[in-house]
Amino acid sequence: MYNSIMVKRGAERSVIRELFEYGNRRKAEIGAENVFDFSIGNPSAPVPEELERFLQANRGGHGYTSAPGLFPVRKAVSDYIRTSFGVPMSEELVYMTCGASSSIVITLTAALNAGEEVIVPAPFFPEYAVFIEEAGGVLVSVPTDENFHLDLGAIGRAITEKTRAILLNSPNNPTGAIYTEAEMYALGRLLDGYSGRPQGPILLLADEPYRELVYGAAPVYPMKVYDHTVVLYSFSKSLSLAGERIGYIAISPQCYGAQELFAAVCGAGRRHGYVCAPALFQRAVASCLGKCADLGMYRANRDLLFGALSDMGYACIVPEGAFYLFVKSPEPDAVAFAERAKKYELLLVPSDSFGVKGYVRISYCVERAVIERSLPAFRALIGEYGG
Amino acid sequence: MYNSIMVKRGAERSVIRELFEYGNRRKAEIGAENVFDFSIGNPSAPVPEELERFLQANRGGHGYTSAPGLFPVRKAVSDYIRTSFGVPMSEELVYMTCGASSSIVITLTAALNAGEEVIVPAPFFPEYAVFIEEAGGVLVSVPTDENFHLDLGAIGRAITEKTRAILLNSPNNPTGAIYTEAEMYALGRLLDGYSGRPQGPILLLADEPYRELVYGAAPVYPMKVYDHTVVLYSFSKSLSLAGERIGYIAISPQCYGAQELFAAVCGAGRRHGYVCAPALFQRAVASCLGKCADLGMYRANRDLLFGALSDMGYACIVPEGAFYLFVKSPEPDAVAFAERAKKYELLLVPSDSFGVKGYVRISYCVERAVIERSLPAFRALIGEYGG
Repeated sequence: MYNSIMVKRGAERSVIRELFEYGNRRKAEIGAENVFDFSIGNPSAPVPEELERFLQANRGGHGYTSAPGLFPVRKAVSDYIRTSFGVPMSEELVYMTCGASSSIVITLTAALNAGEEVIVPAPFFPEYAVFIEEAGGVLVSVPTDENFHLDLGAIGRAITEKTRAILLNSPNNPTGAIYTEAEMYALGRLLDGYSGRPQGPILLLADEPYRELVYGAAPVYPMKVYDHTVVLYSFSKSLSLAGERIGYIAISPQCYGAQELFAAVCGAGRRHGYVCAPALFQRAVASCLGKCADLGMYRANRDLLFGALSDMGYACIVPEGAFYLFVKSPEPDAVAFAERAKKYELLLVPSDSFGVKGYVRISYCVERAVIERSLPAFRALIGEYGG
Repeated sequence: MYNSIMVKRGAERSVIRELFEYGNRRKAEIGAENVFDFSIGNPSAPVPEELERFLQANRGGHGYTSAPGLFPVRKAVSDYIRTSFGVPMSEELVYMTCGASSSIVITLTAALNAGEEVIVPAPFFPEYAVFIEEAGGVLVSVPTDENFHLDLGAIGRAITEKTRAILLNSPNNPTGAIYTEAEMYALGRLLDGYSGRPQGPILLLADEPYRELVYGAAPVYPMKVYDHTVVLYSFSKSLSLAGERIGYIAISPQCYGAQELFAAVCGAGRRHGYVCAPALFQRAVASCLGKCADLGMYRANRDLLFGALSDMGYACIVPEGAFYLFVKSPEPDAVAFAERAKKYELLLVPSDSFGVKGYVRISYCVERAVIERSLPAFRALIGEYGG
């Protein structure tokens, strides 16, 4: 009787969310300390002191803002981008959003015409598939190389007349890979070759919630390597604010039809019922641009987990950023492996919905003690495979 | 090049938002004290003390919640509905949202199949038209009576095989009307007559952000008058939190296919990129259920404005709730009248986009001083019509 696609989307849920809910039920049953929940990227680092102080000190200002956000906040974001990354930016092209998912949904709805294609290197965040399909587009999955870096040949071969955008996520969820400056510039040159098309250039949509969560060199700012770029940002991970739903869309002033795209972003926000981004947190994030929750904690988690799992015989590549470890399943069927892990109360997300088979994703943005307590379980699990 | 419907939706903006932005520009030009901005329902009453105390005292808890919301918050909302209104309710059928617009968008997307009709008594909140169209439905506007109350005959005649829902807003934006208990029960009986249809009953979608903002008897709870009811709620107006985007969807347990509809609501939330409602404000509103910002202020504004405008010769009906005064335009073209009002820095919203012609909406949720200062302007304006 009701909308059957929505019933299905609701009943299936996302694999990550499903496991997250399973974990919550299991914690209630056997105690939180006995469940090793690596399912979701829910940051455990405290928010920065500056932000906490802002929240404590602030009164009022809970009214509607302009739909694209408070002007001083948009200006602060624009200034931050311009001065930090050395690219042109305008506050008129910044649109504050309710977090990364709304940044992506709104931008796809704004940019895509029915049937247009979006190239996405796999593995990718599973909800991309929902967002692209619901915006009327077609997800074109392309493989990455053995280190999960860009395969430019594959991308080039995937481009068609219907390609409207490529959607990148670096640092990457679920692999932790950061695309190098060289490969990003090479991608820019590749895309530039299509900029004269009658249907307009290919957009580079850069989904960047993990930009600050890097363990080495910072990733190149995508607007530097290519004009027709839109940065989709969220403060969820950098400021440990995942539940508060605050982020932004920043369209490069050098993007083809930037004003038209911004108008479409405003229209798409309206269409999805986003009246404005949460007012208090608009002002809160503007007070801490460039700040980051304690990265040292995630680095220590990464080193502990990567070292221990590698020693046990798990095959994985050291993450360069974000807080995910992408581990090869010791059996071809990652879903079966993740099910087996549940016996040990290990909640790992199988990679199938990320567009590749044979891996599991471990979110290590948890307290260190969870990782420490989980190690015997990981050891017992691989023992089942003779590891 | 980009999605032309979204470009258009963004370029046109909502009439209310357009005027709101105009007002902001005008205030910058001539000083805020010289602009009488009655454009938007942005509450000026301070948030309740309890809520301010909660926000000051609270630390942490900014992580993702479950998509439908924190369980204790959903339970608190369910308990509140059950005990306050004497209807059955279940926390399993409460879904926390990013405010009223997202409550409406999500529910329409969940409930409607392509081409199904939603009956809406006019005048109505203009964004209903966008939300219904984008959910694939058809808005069927029905007239109200001379006091803006329900015309059950018109509603009955508007029902077809394709009718999926009726969308009500009481207390009403823009008229301030509250549908009486008698007319709501009569509506319930009318709709009950269709409950045996093969395509299922007609849903009553009750958009209730103004429930607590009433100057006389409280409106009957819609779940009392009809089983197949979904309440769409926002704390924007009752707690003066319009910019924080927090509300809920509550499906009556007696609604046909309630579980299926709830699954569809979850799917629709996912589809629109709503990961969860803002976490801090989920907990904040749960701490103040049933509380309301200072209603006395709005009552005093209503009495002052209604009295003064009536004395000047404006034709209007006294609002029973909400904080809008719906005033007959002294010329047939309300758009022309609203343009003329701008000469006096009076920002009034013409009624055309509300689905009726010949009125303007005045949002009196402003500081009393704004109303006091505006009265000479209202007098000069009607003077142009010989009033």
